[in-house]
Amino acid sequence: MDAEDRLRPDFVEKVLDAVHDGDAETARGLVKPLHPADVADLIELARADEREGLVAALAELVDAEVLAELNEHVREILISEMAPERVAEIAGELDTDDAVAIIEDLEEDDQRAVLRAMEPDDRAAIEEALTYGEETAGRLMQRDLIAVPTHWNVGQVIDYLRSERELADDFWEVFVVSPSHHPVGTCKLSTILRSPRATSVADIMAVEQTLIPVDMDQEDVALRFQKYALVSAAVIDASGRLVGMITVDDIVHIIQAEASEDVLLLSGAGEGDINEPVLDSYKARVRWLIANLLTALLASTIIRLFEGSIERLAILAALMPIVAGVGGNAGTQTLAVTVRALATNQLTGSNRWRAVGREMRVALMNGLTVASLVGIAVTLILGSGQLGGVIAAAMLFNVLIAGFAGVLVPLTMERWGADPAVASSIFVTMVTDSMGFLLFLGLATAVGLTG
Amino acid sequence: MDAEDRLRPDFVEKVLDAVHDGDAETARGLVKPLHPADVADLIELARADEREGLVAALAELVDAEVLAELNEHVREILISEMAPERVAEIAGELDTDDAVAIIEDLEEDDQRAVLRAMEPDDRAAIEEALTYGEETAGRLMQRDLIAVPTHWNVGQVIDYLRSERELADDFWEVFVVSPSHHPVGTCKLSTILRSPRATSVADIMAVEQTLIPVDMDQEDVALRFQKYALVSAAVIDASGRLVGMITVDDIVHIIQAEASEDVLLLSGAGEGDINEPVLDSYKARVRWLIANLLTALLASTIIRLFEGSIERLAILAALMPIVAGVGGNAGTQTLAVTVRALATNQLTGSNRWRAVGREMRVALMNGLTVASLVGIAVTLILGSGQLGGVIAAAMLFNVLIAGFAGVLVPLTMERWGADPAVASSIFVTMVTDSMGFLLFLGLATAVGLTG
Repeated sequence: MDAEDRLRPDFVEKVLDAVHDGDAETARGLVKPLHPADVADLIELARADEREGLVAALAELVDAEVLAELNEHVREILISEMAPERVAEIAGELDTDDAVAIIEDLEEDDQRAVLRAMEPDDRAAIEEALTYGEETAGRLMQRDLIAVPTHWNVGQVIDYLRSERELADDFWEVFVVSPSHHPVGTCKLSTILRSPRATSVADIMAVEQTLIPVDMDQEDVALRFQKYALVSAAVIDASGRLVGMITVDDIVHIIQAEASEDVLLLSGAGEGDINEPVLDSYKARVRWLIANLLTALLASTIIRLFEGSIERLAILAALMPIVAGVGGNAGTQTLAVTVRALATNQLTGSNRWRAVGREMRVALMNGLTVASLVGIAVTLILGSGQLGGVIAAAMLFNVLIAGFAGVLVPLTMERWGADPAVASSIFVTMVTDSMGFLLFLGLATAVGLTG
Repeated sequence: MDAEDRLRPDFVEKVLDAVHDGDAETARGLVKPLHPADVADLIELARADEREGLVAALAELVDAEVLAELNEHVREILISEMAPERVAEIAGELDTDDAVAIIEDLEEDDQRAVLRAMEPDDRAAIEEALTYGEETAGRLMQRDLIAVPTHWNVGQVIDYLRSERELADDFWEVFVVSPSHHPVGTCKLSTILRSPRATSVADIMAVEQTLIPVDMDQEDVALRFQKYALVSAAVIDASGRLVGMITVDDIVHIIQAEASEDVLLLSGAGEGDINEPVLDSYKARVRWLIANLLTALLASTIIRLFEGSIERLAILAALMPIVAGVGGNAGTQTLAVTVRALATNQLTGSNRWRAVGREMRVALMNGLTVASLVGIAVTLILGSGQLGGVIAAAMLFNVLIAGFAGVLVPLTMERWGADPAVASSIFVTMVTDSMGFLLFLGLATAVGLTG
């Protein structure tokens, strides 16, 4: 293990060499001390063609926990090679949320075969979870939770916890419910431990609760956990009854995934997982490149309007990409800031216009700086103050337009209910490219530079 | 509150109107039911010039918790207007980690004044935390934790927790320590609650622990929490003694911040916080734009080599940005995927070359698709198969180069110990721009298209 908790390459090599030599004993000996998350990393780090052999050699060390930790693309392949009974057995050992994560990715036929092979209880829980939409609280929640009636005291809660052998171990709070199973309060375990046995739970429970509707989008669940520093939260159905619990360890992955998604969406890289099949990556990215090609063709028609000017003064062709490129960059900066502020709920209807004003001020300062620099550089290098003035003016306006588009395009997308990270950058680049060429070539032609 | 836990604009308006009308009573009435995190949001959503009045009207509702939740730029301004004694009082009410977060941003003089005004105990804790580097575990940890000796049983732990009034409430695990205060195990509170009083803690503690060195970088701490699904973890000093505890609620913010950082760094938007002072945003972004300007000037010198060709065939000027632009986009896609894989420890020495191979295959498929499309479009629109062939060939090679640069530049940065998100995109764009122009104009000239 290196300083950043990554498996060292020579360790990975050693395990794979042992597997290759048919020495499963040694491989298992090396892997045995590892945490399931590290075993999962090891499988991911192996080449696709080595994985089957590795998993076979490790045998029972690749357990339910390891599969739950595994990257979904890698897992999908491993699971597709397993018998439905084995998958059912694995899913039975996991919390509902982890079992659902494994089963939801299966083809419909395989899904049915696995469900048929499961214990009726587990099967019912998973089938219910699958009725909720993907990426909602219903898929994330686990059904194993501790709910106690309001009239109990601390002693009763402790006795109940001690006597029930079948309870899950991963809970951090106890939910207090009404007779109709509506949550009325939450007790941290630390509060229960610190209160005398005779204390009524109703007296020590926190009444202000953060109840998660079962159909809430997982991104909103994650933001709520983050905002209110939650460790676990009750999930309720449409009638307000307690149906499950979400714990922070499942949320941490989502926060990471949702934030990554923005980087990847902004650059048009789709899901952007390095374990994704090449063909899926191709499909996700090529759409974006084709969209980019179309906007570039559009920008090129603007250039064609000025073909005569370029024939007379070819230096214009060398300078015009500078105006478009720096403008595009300024637009991307504003876009990134706006998309993140929207995603983290920092930008709302209350401060929308202030954010636009703020970005325009930054754009003005940036524009003036970059325009002066490029103006001076062109004047000195090419010895034409007029050309320097034209490129400076075009640059200033293009950076201003970039700032305006960079903040307004994602805000508009958000208002229309679209994901602001998805198509914003295509629009913004289209604007900065087209306007960059138009401003520069248009101004140069208008001031008579091209004779 | 809307569906995404954001304060509704009309609510914000109502509070601010009340403040404006001097009706502090109404404003307080509206704000009183809010969670501290929402009060913090309200202050952030107010305009900078309204904030002072709002905070004055809300008075004691703006407490230590609210300040801990506040965006650091907004907080800095509010705190700079407070007396050191008030800041000291607020810091005294917070956990060490939150108090440190507030105090570490102060100017040195103010920092000293605040520390002088604090209780000796709190002061010592904060001064010690400040000796650790910024963004390390030492700054994140809190000193209030529950540590019990190995020879205790569950009953003794519960009695201790019940008798000590001064303990913090936010703990989820109890650390078991040796007489020399080295951590030897961890007990989840659920395990303690579920075990009979006579059970020895040594028998139920988890011996496999995740110990965090006090100087560990916060990004690595966050990845460790995420990887091993931790809720809290012991922090140890260089001699292995238990010195503090980090809880997951502080980590959630870091995961979010570190992932956001990549979006913002890749686009050169610096810290990219919408509450950042305009001048700071300008400074962060203009550096990037100037770097971009320089690479664009470099690319323009390549175009100038072909001025003669462009004068004879101005359509080349209209088409060349297409080759550069789509190439740049393909490079950004690969870059985003690589940077995220590096940041989440999915890409290590073990699978580096495989990742390069994978990206090259995606690039080949993308390149062939986009090249065919642009080749056909140019042939049909301009009626020149030769021009279509030239642009298709240039596009294919540029997309391949983009894929290669997009994965190799960040990998090289990482090897050199630099942040791969910081300057990679400047390099990649420089390569795709220059090579795009060179390939297209060079090929067009070489095949004799320009006479």
